[in-house]
Amino acid sequence: MRSEEAVLILSGGVDSVTLLHYLLARGYVVHAVSFLYGQRHSKEIECAKYWAEKLCSSHRIYRLPRLSQKSALTNPNAKVPETHYSDESQRATVVPARNLVFISFAVALAEELGLKEVFYAAHYNDKAVYPDCREEFVEKISAATREGTYAGVEVRAPFVRMTKADIVNLGLKLGVDYSKTWTCYVGGERPCLKCGSCRERAEAFLLNKTKDPLLSDSEWRRAVEICRSCGGGDGV
Amino acid sequence: MRSEEAVLILSGGVDSVTLLHYLLARGYVVHAVSFLYGQRHSKEIECAKYWAEKLCSSHRIYRLPRLSQKSALTNPNAKVPETHYSDESQRATVVPARNLVFISFAVALAEELGLKEVFYAAHYNDKAVYPDCREEFVEKISAATREGTYAGVEVRAPFVRMTKADIVNLGLKLGVDYSKTWTCYVGGERPCLKCGSCRERAEAFLLNKTKDPLLSDSEWRRAVEICRSCGGGDGV
Repeated sequence: MRSEEAVLILSGGVDSVTLLHYLLARGYVVHAVSFLYGQRHSKEIECAKYWAEKLCSSHRIYRLPRLSQKSALTNPNAKVPETHYSDESQRATVVPARNLVFISFAVALAEELGLKEVFYAAHYNDKAVYPDCREEFVEKISAATREGTYAGVEVRAPFVRMTKADIVNLGLKLGVDYSKTWTCYVGGERPCLKCGSCRERAEAFLLNKTKDPLLSDSEWRRAVEICRSCGGGDGV
Repeated sequence: MRSEEAVLILSGGVDSVTLLHYLLARGYVVHAVSFLYGQRHSKEIECAKYWAEKLCSSHRIYRLPRLSQKSALTNPNAKVPETHYSDESQRATVVPARNLVFISFAVALAEELGLKEVFYAAHYNDKAVYPDCREEFVEKISAATREGTYAGVEVRAPFVRMTKADIVNLGLKLGVDYSKTWTCYVGGERPCLKCGSCRERAEAFLLNKTKDPLLSDSEWRRAVEICRSCGGGDGV
């Protein structure tokens, strides 16, 4: 069943962990790849390890050179913006070409293992701020990797038209334990609840009328409050 | 003159050092990027450093995780095949998706510096063995990086239709000092003269009726002999 094996870029966040469950439900054997790139929120790697050990056939963790001196995601002295995930100010969190770099390593791994598919969990909310998460990019990078590898490796992002709320909706149906996923960009012991990433996560659960199982009751109440104060999770 | 700055993937070999001179001759300010990826022939990095210090505006050297357990280029226990560069057996030297990985880092650097062009020295002889050096790949990866970056970064490989002999021809006209370039894959103190890469280099100089200045007279005589015995440098 070689054709049903694939490489997955697994960060340990909501999106990639849901994608892992989605692929397993479709009968894939999954080889996971994760990256340390100087991100503040390395806690997500612990979640990636947890899921890879439980559900993946193999797991590589690559330590990359620091990709950016500037990004708030990799510079411990910069402030992570406390705005909505799709707000222009979130550009401060952009690590240049991060997904392109991750994809290239995942494609290298697929090529070495003789596999034809690489998956990553780009989604619709990423689109506003991250150009390497857009559908047009996915199509083009896939055309390039198909051309540039012996195996004809394709890059797939099945969630690219889904919002994070859609992804959580799917994950809840698939029985994903979201208490074992990490999202906050800031890198503290507990989610800050204020960064764009925390807000987006809270909104996704709110829209699904479900408490985020990562949070305590009081954290959840605070997250809902913050989320509603900026218009998130409307209509819930 | 921001538009005339570019990022160059500089290995320290004949092709990328020639490309550096070519870009400078065209008025570019060049930011070089080199990679340590577990290659046996890390001597080439010393050449990259030499040229970057002399001619580039900046130089980053990224240490990457080992890209392949299998490739003869990165596994010190594997034998580097002693055949012509375009021979099928040279596939043993392929590091999966190596150029894709290099390009992705170079694009990340261009994006961080706000530059629009990344150059690498893929050429016609690479085509037989390395799919990520083919013209079709260059076009497609450039389309992907243009789409996936804020700056609309393009990937260019101006030597993609040139043979190594054409490149040496150009370099000789540009006055490149090829004694400061490294090519041999094996990783010894002196070039082995037998690996595909040494053969290709000797052939390129032979076709230009020029002694390779990296080699001593006796090494050059041996290189010519090996090259001719397998039909290389014909008609010289």
